[in-house]
Amino acid sequence: MAFRKFLPLFDRVLVERLTAETVTKGGIMLPEKSQGKVLEATVKAVGPGSFNQKGDMQPVSVKVGEKVLLPEYGGTKVVLDNKDYFLFRDGDILGKFME
Amino acid sequence: MAFRKFLPLFDRVLVERLTAETVTKGGIMLPEKSQGKVLEATVKAVGPGSFNQKGDMQPVSVKVGEKVLLPEYGGTKVVLDNKDYFLFRDGDILGKFME
Amino acid sequence: MAFRKFLPLFDRVLVERLTAETVTKGGIMLPEKSQGKVLEATVKAVGPGSFNQKGDMQPVSVKVGEKVLLPEYGGTKVVLDNKDYFLFRDGDILGKFME
Amino acid sequence: MAFRKFLPLFDRVLVERLTAETVTKGGIMLPEKSQGKVLEATVKAVGPGSFNQKGDMQPVSVKVGEKVLLPEYGGTKVVLDNKDYFLFRDGDILGKFME
Amino acid sequence: MAFRKFLPLFDRVLVERLTAETVTKGGIMLPEKSQGKVLEATVKAVGPGSFNQKGDMQPVSVKVGEKVLLPEYGGTKVVLDNKDYFLFRDGDILGKFME
Amino acid sequence: MAFRKFLPLFDRVLVERLTAETVTKGGIMLPEKSQGKVLEATVKAVGPGSFNQKGDMQPVSVKVGEKVLLPEYGGTKVVLDNKDYFLFRDGDILGKFME
Amino acid sequence: MAFRKFLPLFDRVLVERLTAETVTKGGIMLPEKSQGKVLEATVKAVGPGSFNQKGDMQPVSVKVGEKVLLPEYGGTKVVLDNKDYFLFRDGDILGKFME
Repeated sequence: MAFRKFLPLFDRVLVERLTAETVTKGGIMLPEKSQGKVLEATVKAVGPGSFNQKGDMQPVSVKVGEKVLLPEYGGTKVVLDNKDYFLFRDGDILGKFME
Repeated sequence: MAFRKFLPLFDRVLVERLTAETVTKGGIMLPEKSQGKVLEATVKAVGPGSFNQKGDMQPVSVKVGEKVLLPEYGGTKVVLDNKDYFLFRDGDILGKFME
Repeated sequence: MAFRKFLPLFDRVLVERLTAETVTKGGIMLPEKSQGKVLEATVKAVGPGSFNQKGDMQPVSVKVGEKVLLPEYGGTKVVLDNKDYFLFRDGDILGKFME
Repeated sequence: MAFRKFLPLFDRVLVERLTAETVTKGGIMLPEKSQGKVLEATVKAVGPGSFNQKGDMQPVSVKVGEKVLLPEYGGTKVVLDNKDYFLFRDGDILGKFME
Repeated sequence: MAFRKFLPLFDRVLVERLTAETVTKGGIMLPEKSQGKVLEATVKAVGPGSFNQKGDMQPVSVKVGEKVLLPEYGGTKVVLDNKDYFLFRDGDILGKFME
Repeated sequence: MAFRKFLPLFDRVLVERLTAETVTKGGIMLPEKSQGKVLEATVKAVGPGSFNQKGDMQPVSVKVGEKVLLPEYGGTKVVLDNKDYFLFRDGDILGKFME
Repeated sequence: MAFRKFLPLFDRVLVERLTAETVTKGGIMLPEKSQGKVLEATVKAVGPGSFNQKGDMQPVSVKVGEKVLLPEYGGTKVVLDNKDYFLFRDGDILGKFME
């Protein structure tokens, strides 16, 4: 997979947003405006972490495959193999969903 | 419960605001404008804490179930299972109420 | 008392402003405009302190019951049991009055 | 004296400005505009100091009774027993005069 | 080669952007506007790193020859032997591509 | 001398600017506009230094009597015994001239 | 030489810009506008360095005589013996050229 080849630097986290629901449960297609902004995403790759005050590497707090909640704004869109991903700093990710 | 599955990252605290009083003690319904902004909330989930200057994890200062006083502004609204919650940084919560 | 139940977080200090004088020494009532802004207050509750650069807890520099001088601006008004209090960061309080 | 009862917090220094000269050496009264802004002051009370990077208390660099040179701007006016004083952070005082 | 002679200072990284595709796969020439902004680049030279909080040298996180992903904005264009290169701080490079 | 009595605090340096040349080498008087701004100055008094990250006193880098180069802007004018001096932070002085 | 007498303070570096080419290789004189801004310079004097987080002196990263690449903006012009030099902080110099 494309993202396997990409290694974020420092405390950056590469995520893929979940697809917005385009059809209601009743089967009615939703116009794009009615589709909510998707803030859930799956972690695809993580950087090695950032250096703390003591000069030690602080690993990021999420792992590949985890479902995370993104902030509404921020993040950097990157296109890898024609697919949209987003890079967030570890500290900007709001939380994660535990199964 | 929905919030059980959500784990805030770092020093973030997930809270649920108390419901605004919509009826006076005398039984008169209050229009939305007259309902005061609710600043009290219950802690629903807490992050593991943030790293201090020595690189050690500093736990957050509130616990799940505690009643807290929120600042009038700030916080990030998050919707989990169609219910509104708010994320605050531990350091932005003004205080807690002790029974 | 209401404030007994409220515990400020970190280095926050809960104070109650002294009442403005509404009558002159000679017994003449003062209109609200002529009443000076009251900057003296009594400490009602204090937070545990904040963490210093070494990760140790630094207690606040005032104690419950002490009379303090507040800065003219700043502070957060909080209403507890229908009474007005103010929260100040320990470092923003200008000084205290010793009997 | 009033200022004896007031203890500045942290690295704050309470000073009393010298009186502006209102009469020339030749005995002519000066209108208020011609009176220079007085930047010399006497230290009346000092705070215990501020915490340095190691978490140790750093005492202030001036002592009660010393004559200091104030910056042209800054400082907080406080009124104690109907007399004007000014609070400056230790680090904002420009220098002191040695007899 | 020109860049061999140039040694970036601190945590600066000298990169050469990949050439924009000017012809489609079908052989049609693309006008300059239709050519996407190239964010991939090859590392040509790296600085020795920057000093961390302990005063130790922290090497940069990329190596000469690695393919990196640049942020859309930022970087300093430098012309060496009539060829365009860009200098980025190590911390501003988004990630690298692993073969 | 006046400046002997004045002790700058922290890393402040008291300097006296060299006099601007008001006559050309050929003996022609220069109007004030043509006189260049004098950036050379003599150190008249120095503060004890500032505290570094470890809480130790860091002495200033210039000594009384040394000739220094001032930045074009900045510095605080102070009048001592009717003579103009300037206070600069040690770190703002550009360099010194060695005989 | 003039610059021998001048010692920059802290991490400042005194440089002399290379002269802009005023004649093309073919011998045609270039108007001033067509002369590129010269970003290459020779180091003429260096300060002792700056203090790092541990309070130790960190020497500058360039040496007298080295050819450096300057940023397009920044630096402070200083005139020593009627000749133009520029002062840059060590950290603002982009890189150096190795023979």
